[in-house]
Amino acid sequence: MEKVLEEVLEENQVLAKHGKVASYIPALSKVNPNHLGICIIDANGNTYKKGDCEVKFTIQSISKVIGLMLALMDNGEKVFEKVGREGTEDPFNTLYKLDLPYIKKPVNPMINAGAIATTAQIKGDKIKRILELIRDITENLNIDYSREVYLSEKTTGEKNKAIAHLLRARGMIDEEPDEALDHYFKQCSIEVTACDLAKIAIFIANGCKGLKSYGEINRKTLSRNLLAIMTMGGMYNISGQYAAEVGVPSKSGVGGGIMAAVPGRMGIGIFSPPLDENGHSAAGYGIMKSLSRRLDLSIF
Amino acid sequence: MEKVLEEVLEENQVLAKHGKVASYIPALSKVNPNHLGICIIDANGNTYKKGDCEVKFTIQSISKVIGLMLALMDNGEKVFEKVGREGTEDPFNTLYKLDLPYIKKPVNPMINAGAIATTAQIKGDKIKRILELIRDITENLNIDYSREVYLSEKTTGEKNKAIAHLLRARGMIDEEPDEALDHYFKQCSIEVTACDLAKIAIFIANGCKGLKSYGEINRKTLSRNLLAIMTMGGMYNISGQYAAEVGVPSKSGVGGGIMAAVPGRMGIGIFSPPLDENGHSAAGYGIMKSLSRRLDLSIF
Amino acid sequence: MEKVLEEVLEENQVLAKHGKVASYIPALSKVNPNHLGICIIDANGNTYKKGDCEVKFTIQSISKVIGLMLALMDNGEKVFEKVGREGTEDPFNTLYKLDLPYIKKPVNPMINAGAIATTAQIKGDKIKRILELIRDITENLNIDYSREVYLSEKTTGEKNKAIAHLLRARGMIDEEPDEALDHYFKQCSIEVTACDLAKIAIFIANGCKGLKSYGEINRKTLSRNLLAIMTMGGMYNISGQYAAEVGVPSKSGVGGGIMAAVPGRMGIGIFSPPLDENGHSAAGYGIMKSLSRRLDLSIF
Amino acid sequence: MEKVLEEVLEENQVLAKHGKVASYIPALSKVNPNHLGICIIDANGNTYKKGDCEVKFTIQSISKVIGLMLALMDNGEKVFEKVGREGTEDPFNTLYKLDLPYIKKPVNPMINAGAIATTAQIKGDKIKRILELIRDITENLNIDYSREVYLSEKTTGEKNKAIAHLLRARGMIDEEPDEALDHYFKQCSIEVTACDLAKIAIFIANGCKGLKSYGEINRKTLSRNLLAIMTMGGMYNISGQYAAEVGVPSKSGVGGGIMAAVPGRMGIGIFSPPLDENGHSAAGYGIMKSLSRRLDLSIF
Repeated sequence: MEKVLEEVLEENQVLAKHGKVASYIPALSKVNPNHLGICIIDANGNTYKKGDCEVKFTIQSISKVIGLMLALMDNGEKVFEKVGREGTEDPFNTLYKLDLPYIKKPVNPMINAGAIATTAQIKGDKIKRILELIRDITENLNIDYSREVYLSEKTTGEKNKAIAHLLRARGMIDEEPDEALDHYFKQCSIEVTACDLAKIAIFIANGCKGLKSYGEINRKTLSRNLLAIMTMGGMYNISGQYAAEVGVPSKSGVGGGIMAAVPGRMGIGIFSPPLDENGHSAAGYGIMKSLSRRLDLSIF
Repeated sequence: MEKVLEEVLEENQVLAKHGKVASYIPALSKVNPNHLGICIIDANGNTYKKGDCEVKFTIQSISKVIGLMLALMDNGEKVFEKVGREGTEDPFNTLYKLDLPYIKKPVNPMINAGAIATTAQIKGDKIKRILELIRDITENLNIDYSREVYLSEKTTGEKNKAIAHLLRARGMIDEEPDEALDHYFKQCSIEVTACDLAKIAIFIANGCKGLKSYGEINRKTLSRNLLAIMTMGGMYNISGQYAAEVGVPSKSGVGGGIMAAVPGRMGIGIFSPPLDENGHSAAGYGIMKSLSRRLDLSIF
Repeated sequence: MEKVLEEVLEENQVLAKHGKVASYIPALSKVNPNHLGICIIDANGNTYKKGDCEVKFTIQSISKVIGLMLALMDNGEKVFEKVGREGTEDPFNTLYKLDLPYIKKPVNPMINAGAIATTAQIKGDKIKRILELIRDITENLNIDYSREVYLSEKTTGEKNKAIAHLLRARGMIDEEPDEALDHYFKQCSIEVTACDLAKIAIFIANGCKGLKSYGEINRKTLSRNLLAIMTMGGMYNISGQYAAEVGVPSKSGVGGGIMAAVPGRMGIGIFSPPLDENGHSAAGYGIMKSLSRRLDLSIF
Repeated sequence: MEKVLEEVLEENQVLAKHGKVASYIPALSKVNPNHLGICIIDANGNTYKKGDCEVKFTIQSISKVIGLMLALMDNGEKVFEKVGREGTEDPFNTLYKLDLPYIKKPVNPMINAGAIATTAQIKGDKIKRILELIRDITENLNIDYSREVYLSEKTTGEKNKAIAHLLRARGMIDEEPDEALDHYFKQCSIEVTACDLAKIAIFIANGCKGLKSYGEINRKTLSRNLLAIMTMGGMYNISGQYAAEVGVPSKSGVGGGIMAAVPGRMGIGIFSPPLDENGHSAAGYGIMKSLSRRLDLSIF
C-alpha cells in the first residue's frame, strides 16, 4: 500500500503544475501550490499516508457533506422536503432554476443553493455543532474555522448572497439569509488536513456507526444517503463522468481537498491546491483515477 | 431465494393497484395490469423466477441502455462528445436546455434527447444491430419489435419529434431527424420478458464479458459507464432518490419493466405494468426496495 | 419628397455593402445584393418611389403581420388566448420557453412559434385566403408564392419543425404540425415588391378600412393590435431599440424587406437584401432612421 | 374635459372594489382604498383634475422612469450598454435570465433588475439628485421620500436583494449591491400626488424641454427613449396588451399610481390604490382605456 501511494503521487503530481490555485479570495490564493498529500484509512482502522498530510487547508465545499450529515441527524429524511437528491449539469453556484415558479427546492445539497437550504435545517448553534461533529468524528479537538478565510468569504461572496436572498424570497429557507450565509461562510472556512478528511470518509464508508448522541436516524439510511448524494453531485457538474471514471463517492472543495468514501472499505483524504478547469484538485482527480484502477475501488 | 421472491412479490403487488398503466398510445393501454413477474440471475448463472416471467412487453426506455452499449461498442468513449453523463431534475422528455446557446449536448443518454443523440452514433442498420445485440446477450433469437407499438409511437410522439428536429437544428445529431426517430420508435417497441431483462442486466453487472465481435472498447470501461449512467439517470429525475433508497443501477420503462444490475452479483428483471406518478412500475419500485434491503444489494 | 427619397437611398446604400444576404436556403442566396428600392404611399394615396420597386422578393417574416391580420379577422381578439402580445429579448426562433410548464403560449405573433400558433387559427384554406387578402389589399392579382423557395424552406427548416411539434405536444395548436408548417413555409415564400409592402402598410396605418367581407372585428381594434404588436416585436429582439431610434411600427423579413406603417400618415416598403447582424435589411434599417428624422415619423 | 374626467371616474371607480391594495409591506397596506384621483395637463399647460389629486402616495415603480431619465441625462445612450430596451413576458421581479451565461444585461429599465442597473449609472448622490429632478420638473419643492416606507422596503425586499447581489456577481453593476439597493428603496419611497405625476408626464410628452443644467443628451432622443421604453415595458409583462388596448406610453406603480404621457399632447396622473391581478391600479387601467377611447389618445 505504501508503494501504491508513492507511485500514484509520483504519477499525478505533474497535474498540479497545470492547475490553478483558487484566487477568488486573497486568503486562498496564498496557499502553497506544491503541497501534496494523501491519507487512506481502511475499514480496520489501518492508516496509510504519504506527503503533506498534516498541512491544514480550508474544507470549503467538502463541508457540505458534514452539513448534510448533521441536518439528517437532526431531521431524518424530512430534509429532502427542502432539497433534492438529483444530479445536474448546472454549475455549483447556479441559481436560475430557483426563480422558475415550478421549481420547489434546490436540486441537491452539493450545489451552493442546496447546501444553504440544507444547513438551514441544522438545529441550534450551527457552527458550534458542525465543529463538534467533525471533532467527534476525527477525534481532532483542534478543528476550528479560519477567521481570516471566513471574513474574506463574507466580504466577497456576491453570488452566494444572491442565492440566500432568493431562497428566502421563494420561501425555501425560513432563516434570515444573512444568518444562513454567515454560517455557510464559517462552515466553508473550517480547516482540516488530508487525514481529517480520511477519518470523516471512513466514518461514512463504514455506515456512520457510533456517535449515538447524534439523533435517531437509522445509520445505514444516513450513510447511504451521503454516499448516494456524493455520487450524484459531489463532483458538481462532472459527477457522472467521475462516477464512470473513478466510481467512488467523493466530494471536492476549492481549497484543494478531495474526500472519497469507498463503501465498506476505505476512507481517502487528498490535498493538492491547484484546481483543474472544473474546479477540482487537478492532482487529486488524477490520483483518484489511478487509485481506483490499481485498488479496484469502483462501486460499478 | 425462492422464498424471498415470493415474499417481495406478495408484499408489493398491492402497489400495482394504485398505479396506472401507460395510456399515451392505444397499444400500451391494452396490457393486462395484473401481470407481475420477477427474474433474477446471479453471477454464476443461476436463475430464479416467480410470476409472469414469460409474458412479453415492450422494452421502452430500457432500450436506452442497449443503445448506449452499442454506441460505446462502436465508438468508445467518444460517444460522450455528443451526450453528457450527468443527472438532472428535468423530466425524461425535457428539451428546453437544448435551445440555450451555451448548452452543447443532451445531459445524459437516459433522457429521450440523449437517447436519440446516442443511438444516432450507432453504425450501420441500427435496429438490425440492436436486435442482434439483444439476441446475442439473451440467447433469445425470437426478440423482435412490435410493429403495432412502433406504428402507434410513430403517429403520436410529438415531443420526441420536436426533440429530434431540435437536435438536428443545433447540430447535435448528423442524421436526418425522421430517420433517427424512426429508429428510436422501433427500438422502444422491442418486446422482451422479465427474464430477457435479467439476462441483459447480469451481462452488464458481470463486466460485459464476451461478445468479442462487438467493438474494441475495454469491457470494464463499457460496463462501468453503463452502471454509472444508469445510476445517474436510469430512473429519470428521481434517480438520486432511488440511489439512496435502493442503490442498484437500474433502468425503467413505461412498458412496466425495470432492469437492475447489481455490480458483480446479480441481474434483475421485473415486469408489472401499472406506473407510479414518476412513470416507474409501481410494484417494481417497491420490489426493488424490498430486495435491496433483504439481500443487501445497495452499492452504497 | 422625391428628393428626400433620393437622399436617404444615397446615404444608406453603403450599409448594404456591410450586410450579408440570407443564405440558409439556396433560393435566397441567389438574390442580387445590389437591389435597393423604396416606395411610400401617403394617407391620400399619393405614391412616391425610388430604385428597385418592382423587383419581386420573398416576404418571409413580414407575412406574420398578414397572418395575424387574417386570424384577427376570423376570430377577433380571441386570437390572444393562444398567443401573447409582449416583446422579448429572445431570438425569432426561440422555443425553450414553450417547454417550461408555466408558459401557456408563445410570447407574440412576430416570433416563429407565435406566428405558427397564430396562422393555426386562420379558417379554411389558409394559403389561398392569405393570398386573396394580400391581392385584395394590394390590388395586385399576380401575388403568389414561390414554389422554389417553399420547397427549399420545407426541406431545411429544422428549427421550425421542432417548434411546430413542440406546440402540438404542449396543446398550443390543434392542427397537425406538418400541415401548420406546410402553410407557414408557403406563407413565407409569397413574393412581393416594395410597393406591395407599402400598400399593405398604408392599409394598416389607415385603420384597415374597407374589405368588408373579411370578418366582423372592429377595424380600429384590428389596426391598433397590428401596430402595437409590430412595435413590440416586429423587429424581433431589437424592437425596443428600433422603437427608440425609429419609432415607426415595422416588420422586417430575411428576404430583405421592411414594411413600416406610420399611424394615420404613411405606408413604407423597402427592399435591400443584405442583412445586418440582427437579421434586418442593413440599408433598410438605416433608411428608416433617416426617414424618421427627416419626416418626423416617430410615434414617440 | 371636466365632464369627461367626471364620467371616466364614475365609470371605473367600481373596478377599485375588485382590486387589492398592495400589502407586502405594512406601510403600503395602510392606504385608503377609496382614494381616486386624476389630473391631466395638456401641452399648453392647462390643468384638469378630479378627485383626490392632492393625496400623497409612494411613487414605487414609476420612479424607474425618473431614474432612467437621470441616467440618460448623465451618460447619454451609453446607458444601454448596461441595460436593454426590450419587452418581456417575465414578471417585474424576474432574475433567472441574469444567471444564464449568454445574457449580458437586464432586459429593460422597467423591471426591477433593469432599474437597479440603470440607477447604478446615476452620478453623485443619487437620491438627492433624483429628488431635485422631480422637484425641478414638478416645481413642487416638498417632494421627498417616506422614511417609513423606505425602512419597510429595506427590511423586506428579499427578491430585490437577490437581484442586486446577482447583478454584482455577474459584473452588471459596479456599485456595492447594498448601496444600490439602499438608493433603490429610497427612490421607490418618494411621495407624489396625481398632479405631480401629470407634471412629469407632460414634461416627457413635450420632449423633455428645459432644465438645461441636466446633461447634454439631445432632448428629443431623451424623450423618445423614455416613451419607447415605457411602451415596451412600463406595464410590465402586459405592456403589449396595454399598448393595443390603450396605446399611451405609461408606467404604473404598486402604490396605485399610473403616469401616462401622450406624445406632444398630454400628461396624465392617476391614483387609485387597489391593484388588479397584474399589479396595476385596477381603476387606473380602466380609466386609461376609457380616456384613450374618448379622447383618441392611442399612438397607434
